[in-house]
Amino acid sequence: MSSLKYAILGTGALGGFYGAKLQKAGHEVHFLLNSDYEKVSQDGLLIQSKDGDFTLPQVNAYNDVKKMPACDVVVVALKTTNNHLLPQLLPPVVKDHGTVLLLQNGLGIETEVSQIVNNVTVIGGLCFLCSNKILPGHIHHLDYGQITLGEYAANYQPAGITDKMRKIAEDFETAGIEIELTEDLLLGRWKKLVWNIPYNGLSVILDATTDELMANLYTRTLVRELMLEVKLGAKSTGREIPDSFIQTMLEYTVKMKPYRTSMKIDFDESRPLEVEAIVGNPLRIAAANDFSLPLIRGLYQQLKFLDERNRN
Amino acid sequence: MSSLKYAILGTGALGGFYGAKLQKAGHEVHFLLNSDYEKVSQDGLLIQSKDGDFTLPQVNAYNDVKKMPACDVVVVALKTTNNHLLPQLLPPVVKDHGTVLLLQNGLGIETEVSQIVNNVTVIGGLCFLCSNKILPGHIHHLDYGQITLGEYAANYQPAGITDKMRKIAEDFETAGIEIELTEDLLLGRWKKLVWNIPYNGLSVILDATTDELMANLYTRTLVRELMLEVKLGAKSTGREIPDSFIQTMLEYTVKMKPYRTSMKIDFDESRPLEVEAIVGNPLRIAAANDFSLPLIRGLYQQLKFLDERNRN
Repeated sequence: MSSLKYAILGTGALGGFYGAKLQKAGHEVHFLLNSDYEKVSQDGLLIQSKDGDFTLPQVNAYNDVKKMPACDVVVVALKTTNNHLLPQLLPPVVKDHGTVLLLQNGLGIETEVSQIVNNVTVIGGLCFLCSNKILPGHIHHLDYGQITLGEYAANYQPAGITDKMRKIAEDFETAGIEIELTEDLLLGRWKKLVWNIPYNGLSVILDATTDELMANLYTRTLVRELMLEVKLGAKSTGREIPDSFIQTMLEYTVKMKPYRTSMKIDFDESRPLEVEAIVGNPLRIAAANDFSLPLIRGLYQQLKFLDERNRN
Repeated sequence: MSSLKYAILGTGALGGFYGAKLQKAGHEVHFLLNSDYEKVSQDGLLIQSKDGDFTLPQVNAYNDVKKMPACDVVVVALKTTNNHLLPQLLPPVVKDHGTVLLLQNGLGIETEVSQIVNNVTVIGGLCFLCSNKILPGHIHHLDYGQITLGEYAANYQPAGITDKMRKIAEDFETAGIEIELTEDLLLGRWKKLVWNIPYNGLSVILDATTDELMANLYTRTLVRELMLEVKLGAKSTGREIPDSFIQTMLEYTVKMKPYRTSMKIDFDESRPLEVEAIVGNPLRIAAANDFSLPLIRGLYQQLKFLDERNRN
């Protein structure tokens, strides 16, 4: 086990879960909280998990990043809709030559973060996790939990498997979190969008769960056509997603339990939607490479309308 | 005034309004009714109109097309979702060498009807009418009312201005209904779709009125892009819609009072949507001419999903 010191920015369903697992395994972890600060600094964290429940009666809780120690690995577990805060949040808490680990959805966020902090490694993490925050400090882990890690290099050039990735992977694995390493973060992010763009988008627009979208002939076809446009977007950046991967995603979703997507949950709770990171950035990156993705663009315009109305 | 005998198939907000105007002007009119038959055969029709209210205490009401006399002009004022009934409804009521006047939305319906009846002229009518059926036999005419007439010829070849069109136009005009004649029915139908496809479609999908769609930057852009695809569909059949027409439709809609589209009203009242006539047929006609309309196709798939769920 390494002696890496961890910070968790955003102690919700995702950050609270992974941070608690790391602390339970013996790592030093510092948690940034916002509305749950009082409760968690008093009572700690309660993780109710399919892998076994546990409590951490005492955690290092903060409501101000300036009070936190500089850490080796700063885990960003905020929704991307809060990323405008990162220029204030990151510099005080990340060590020189440290690492920012972005456990977020979407595309292009590593580029933004690499412009905020210097002398810092940026690693992207793609999480496959079903968990909810039930109450302040009380997280319910329903299923999955594995993370795919990939290091960011300028312009998303494939960075290979680095020592920093290996060290972090080891820490997470000793905490019982399954890790996969990828040499090509951009390809990994596009592959995740194959699922995220159609299901997140259509679930909000059509007020539908994944099983409803797959049971109807028309939306099942539309999902597939949106996936093929994501493949085209990947191609615009020189990445190849095989058709067999799309087929696998479709079959996997048919077999899944009926699922309300994260964007639908945000929408239902009147929270801002991660439209820009998940849909807008891929569109802009493809457009910069002279690829148009008309179906995804239509989806984006519909989501922007619904998101703006939902917050008024 | 001609001595043409009129039949109205579908005595609702549209058929009831135009039929009553014709009878009031002295024409012989025969009304086919379904659920409102008892009420209307007893009490006639009441038209509450911005141009002046009037009642027709006695009308020729029928609940069976076989009891109707053969008529010179059979006005089809059903929703296109009932067009599967036309092979039963039309033959008994239309005279040899008579006319079927289709006051319906969408594309391709004249071709279907011309295959049902022989020795009959088919005329399409594009209605710009705001009216509602408030109660059985009680129709509220809110605004507009003009009709554009165009005669159908095989494969939608432009048919010019014919005597039959002129005679029917004269009857409607004496009844106070503004008529425009078009030499090219297909162009007229495509032009109406420039409005109908985006606003009907998006109003249902996004649960929105026309003013909401125009107030938001993203949906306003999407409406325009959908209109440009309708222009492309028209082009696939050799018809040219000028960009200035699209601009006019956008400006016209911005100035309109907030409007709930007919498809949205059908949706809210759990009636089947006219998706096939308004969206599906244009797509298929463009596809037959090797033009793909991806945004309209995505809209179609979303509407089919919502329509099917709405009726279950």
